[in-house]
Amino acid sequence: MNGEKTTDEITVAIDAMGGDNGPAVVVEGAARAITRGLKANILFVGDRAVLAPLIEKHTELVRSDILHAGSVVAMTDKPMHVVRRAHDTSMWKSVDAVKNGVADAVISCGNTGALMAVSLFQLKKIKGIDRPAVTALWPTQRGRTVVLDVGANVEADADQLVQFAIMGEAFYRALTDVQKPSVGLLNVGAEDLKGHDLIRRAAQVLREADPDMAFKGFVEGNDISGGVVDVVVTDGFTGNVALKSAEGAARLVGQWVKETLTGTLNAKLGALMMAPGLRKLKDRIDPSSVNGGVFLGINGVVVKSHGGADARGVASAVQMAASLARAPFRDEVAQTVATVMERSDALARRREAASDITVAAQ
Amino acid sequence: MNGEKTTDEITVAIDAMGGDNGPAVVVEGAARAITRGLKANILFVGDRAVLAPLIEKHTELVRSDILHAGSVVAMTDKPMHVVRRAHDTSMWKSVDAVKNGVADAVISCGNTGALMAVSLFQLKKIKGIDRPAVTALWPTQRGRTVVLDVGANVEADADQLVQFAIMGEAFYRALTDVQKPSVGLLNVGAEDLKGHDLIRRAAQVLREADPDMAFKGFVEGNDISGGVVDVVVTDGFTGNVALKSAEGAARLVGQWVKETLTGTLNAKLGALMMAPGLRKLKDRIDPSSVNGGVFLGINGVVVKSHGGADARGVASAVQMAASLARAPFRDEVAQTVATVMERSDALARRREAASDITVAAQ
Repeated sequence: MNGEKTTDEITVAIDAMGGDNGPAVVVEGAARAITRGLKANILFVGDRAVLAPLIEKHTELVRSDILHAGSVVAMTDKPMHVVRRAHDTSMWKSVDAVKNGVADAVISCGNTGALMAVSLFQLKKIKGIDRPAVTALWPTQRGRTVVLDVGANVEADADQLVQFAIMGEAFYRALTDVQKPSVGLLNVGAEDLKGHDLIRRAAQVLREADPDMAFKGFVEGNDISGGVVDVVVTDGFTGNVALKSAEGAARLVGQWVKETLTGTLNAKLGALMMAPGLRKLKDRIDPSSVNGGVFLGINGVVVKSHGGADARGVASAVQMAASLARAPFRDEVAQTVATVMERSDALARRREAASDITVAAQ
Repeated sequence: MNGEKTTDEITVAIDAMGGDNGPAVVVEGAARAITRGLKANILFVGDRAVLAPLIEKHTELVRSDILHAGSVVAMTDKPMHVVRRAHDTSMWKSVDAVKNGVADAVISCGNTGALMAVSLFQLKKIKGIDRPAVTALWPTQRGRTVVLDVGANVEADADQLVQFAIMGEAFYRALTDVQKPSVGLLNVGAEDLKGHDLIRRAAQVLREADPDMAFKGFVEGNDISGGVVDVVVTDGFTGNVALKSAEGAARLVGQWVKETLTGTLNAKLGALMMAPGLRKLKDRIDPSSVNGGVFLGINGVVVKSHGGADARGVASAVQMAASLARAPFRDEVAQTVATVMERSDALARRREAASDITVAAQ
């Protein structure tokens, strides 16, 4: 497994042709990750004639290589079309590099649906996982919280939520030094509401069948930014809406701050005096620092970088891909899912038997 | 109907004993609404011995009255217990005042579940509405957007989403000068996802059966703060999570701004120079300015003020209640729902007939 590789042996394949900002930004992002201290080989996948001169500009990229691909997946391409016919694209060839063992992880800024379909088709799912989930790194008052699923599936049943929790927990451990990350299930908190049945069932399984997990029960929307738990689990519909609603609100407050700083001459002078702090504030609000949605549940590390990511965002995604490639993540997930699902079935059978006894005794 | 009453004839009943901050803050909030120019009678409901001296302090409240109630609904009381037994509470008597025509609208800072149960039991639903919905006023780049449902129902089928859209649109018109508010259905926007079936069905009904509505189709989470439409429709689970996630993110950015302003001596001096702008910024982020969730779909105006609302928040809720009491809101909703549901049924029958013909022709 990749988990046993040493740092220097890791290779990250980058679909360098997708993304709204073109290959120059992607190459610059990879170079930035290396400058920041990343020790990994980079395999740029795309048009060699375009990529070679871009890579030459960066001395940091001496250990990188190019895998030529003649075409690019368009944002409007249908996922199944790409799976069936677009095998000469940089996306297909990047994922193929992981399948063939040439690379240990892949990053793409391209079409999300196509990347998911190609990854599923080429790399298959981890044993015991029904569906993959997409992660988001969410900035909080304590650091970062992982939220999943943020868009792979519009619905999730109780078993799938349990699987998301197991994957999210292992993912958090792989990314950080935290050995026992805390996990919460996203729910509503009005006094008379207890959420959907399936969320309550998922909570029961996590409590009873996975005693090793630091499961904290239900959390509410505001607890995400509050950093109440390390991992927040939800279905892809709710997670996507929560993430985008929060991004919209953060952007609105950022806009108000900007208006405040430029409102009057005095405000402008005041802003000058706090320039270093404001630069730091801007960095914190900038989504580039948390770029990189991971497709969990797939037999291989696949990171989706935002289509509009700048070099800094691409660098974050490359670093995340390398961290994951190094961790014994997939074995751990397959093993935990198998154990938990078995225990959950056993518990369900025991409950059924107990209720039979109750009925018989009546 | 209340819509025909002139401004001065409106009476707003206030459950003055609920809320975390006690009756003094509620009385002060009502006084503030009058000072701001509200022309309405206030009926304070609660312990006369407590309320009378508080009201006497405010000369603005000469037109107000007290309805004595001997007890208070606790935050932990079960809704059905309140409906069955707690008829001497300030909450029950406030809602009863609307039922008996003594008041035109009611406000409570108390137990949300109990207020919903009492309102449903006493005032009943508007004809044609399956379930009530709770609104939130959401600050945006253009002004305010109404989001509903934010917590009354964890699930909503296609017909209920259509009813929420009709109620939300009429509500927006009642609150503002906008005659044709735009309406959007909250959905996810990843390329390969088109959302739940029921959302697509709701969109189809709104498009085909309600040609008078300025329906703009699907919107995403970030479009709420973006102010892309006036009314955003969703189920209570998603709406609650979106609202709380956005509040959490806004609070986090606000916290970062505060850290920036107090980080260094220079920053503190700079903050002094922009003090007026910063006060305005604080006001904008303050949720009090948008306090007041309305229970739409009930035969009467019921406004839930946040339990922790300050006087400013209570004043906002009182003003909202009075605006709604004046508008011909409920007749309009009942009429539109009847028309749209009839047209929707007719369209469904026509589609069925057409598919029968297609099958027969094969």
